[in-house]
Amino acid sequence: MRQHLDQFTVRTARGLTDITAEVRRIVDASGVRRGLCTVTIRHTSASLVIQENADPKVLRDLEAFLTRLVPEGDPLFTHNDEGADDMPSHVKAAITRTSEQIPIDGGGLLLGTWQGIYVWDHRHHPRPRTLVVHVAGE
Amino acid sequence: MRQHLDQFTVRTARGLTDITAEVRRIVDASGVRRGLCTVTIRHTSASLVIQENADPKVLRDLEAFLTRLVPEGDPLFTHNDEGADDMPSHVKAAITRTSEQIPIDGGGLLLGTWQGIYVWDHRHHPRPRTLVVHVAGE
Amino acid sequence: MRQHLDQFTVRTARGLTDITAEVRRIVDASGVRRGLCTVTIRHTSASLVIQENADPKVLRDLEAFLTRLVPEGDPLFTHNDEGADDMPSHVKAAITRTSEQIPIDGGGLLLGTWQGIYVWDHRHHPRPRTLVVHVAGE
Repeated sequence: MRQHLDQFTVRTARGLTDITAEVRRIVDASGVRRGLCTVTIRHTSASLVIQENADPKVLRDLEAFLTRLVPEGDPLFTHNDEGADDMPSHVKAAITRTSEQIPIDGGGLLLGTWQGIYVWDHRHHPRPRTLVVHVAGE
Repeated sequence: MRQHLDQFTVRTARGLTDITAEVRRIVDASGVRRGLCTVTIRHTSASLVIQENADPKVLRDLEAFLTRLVPEGDPLFTHNDEGADDMPSHVKAAITRTSEQIPIDGGGLLLGTWQGIYVWDHRHHPRPRTLVVHVAGE
Repeated sequence: MRQHLDQFTVRTARGLTDITAEVRRIVDASGVRRGLCTVTIRHTSASLVIQENADPKVLRDLEAFLTRLVPEGDPLFTHNDEGADDMPSHVKAAITRTSEQIPIDGGGLLLGTWQGIYVWDHRHHPRPRTLVVHVAGE
């Protein structure tokens, strides 16, 4: 087994941004034909999910649901240093994910037909987000 | 280090289905005595969790809680192509998991006493679900 | 590639306990300079998250939000063998995480500036919690 480690930065908007192509490019560059790909995000107010890549309404509804579940201006929150979307962003990141794994076979990502890899940015004015991709295999 | 990659399909009912035995079988077949097992699900309306395997009421309560938290027929949802349970299924999958890792030692899964690996199907009429198991180690 | 597997036990209080230093120690001991670290928790009423390590109010607010979202004494719950915090603990663990991955480079954890690794204990009177750390790389 051998491994490959790479990073990339993505400019997101609030909500879900598809990074499947960037991840695929790194897996291609690794030369690994069979193995495991691990994606991690180096932030605590943005997160990762693998979700439906066909209907953009799914992405809209995911964002709408999470924003209703974790509303801005909630008097429960005491940490508001960076504004009303600061603490809701941390909660949303905590209940989604900081890393995702995707197996690799035949040199490609073994995703389901409807699966895409997304950065979910919870801030209104996102800064560039850094992702790390680790590939291990043969 | 070496690796082993396998897939299997499981027939689920709505709610949680224990797949620990199937995962264990693949780890056994891999011959890996010490290492890491990664399970992924190739769907976006079903997910994975590691949860209590002793009292079936835990599984019932998990399902009841998540269904109350993400109710069907919510007017917030615009994606309803496959029925009222379509979009709630995506949300439930997004706030649980698409992959799980379990370390391996002595040829066995290093789970806690009360831990089982579950597919959580969020659809009323689930189709067969495909899981991928990656094992790496020595 | 080579690997290293280790376990440690941590005494938690209800809420979030930083385990970044313990994980770092195991990565140091492994001698791996570049690779991937996987942390898993062997319990179903405590979980893992990677979250903000700067302002303790973030940790307080995360705990407050999750406890309001999954309240004790909810008549929905039928599993109460170990008290009113029993079933809420399982739900909270199910919507956070049982494992986390952190890439390694230059012999250190490739965490973001504000990221720490936390055990999130959901019980009022936590017992010692066992964590497993798997390190693979070169």
